[in-house]
Amino acid sequence: MGSFVAQTFQAKVYVTLRPSVLDPAGTAVRSGVQQMGYQNVEQIRIGKYIEVTLQAADEAEAVQQIDQICDRILANPVIETYRFDLTPLSETATTTAH
Amino acid sequence: MGSFVAQTFQAKVYVTLRPSVLDPAGTAVRSGVQQMGYQNVEQIRIGKYIEVTLQAADEAEAVQQIDQICDRILANPVIETYRFDLTPLSETATTTAH
Repeated sequence: MGSFVAQTFQAKVYVTLRPSVLDPAGTAVRSGVQQMGYQNVEQIRIGKYIEVTLQAADEAEAVQQIDQICDRILANPVIETYRFDLTPLSETATTTAH
Repeated sequence: MGSFVAQTFQAKVYVTLRPSVLDPAGTAVRSGVQQMGYQNVEQIRIGKYIEVTLQAADEAEAVQQIDQICDRILANPVIETYRFDLTPLSETATTTAH
């Protein structure tokens, strides 16, 4: 009789352009904001915010997988950086009979 | 002699789709992630992360302005919700002689 406990985690991933990379979309939004009367807005930079829900045996496994997923799909490491927070959502106990 | 002290603030704005709104882009990314071998990924939802740097007299004014900018430009209140954190970056003292 083996027992496998899987936990559900949610990662909040923030993907931003590296500081040296120009952000034309952000500059365009800043112009729009300034034309609407908010002249005190100095800079706007636009990134991505991604919520990933996944199952993993423990937090270490979840961190490792999210890291791989960010590197391979969610971010382009050449021009972007990412960081994420991980929160446990619940615990699901799955018992497997042998 | 009048003195006006302006502070620089940075707002980190998170714009997400309302839970009832479908996210086809997120679903497509989840399929891609699963085909790459991460079958344990249950859900992916994609939002925007925006950094706004602005000058304001105090925190209350900055909060009010960011709130307006989010409502009018950064988010579409019909399908999206937003939240933001505000951090003071520095203090700039401007003295105006009369």
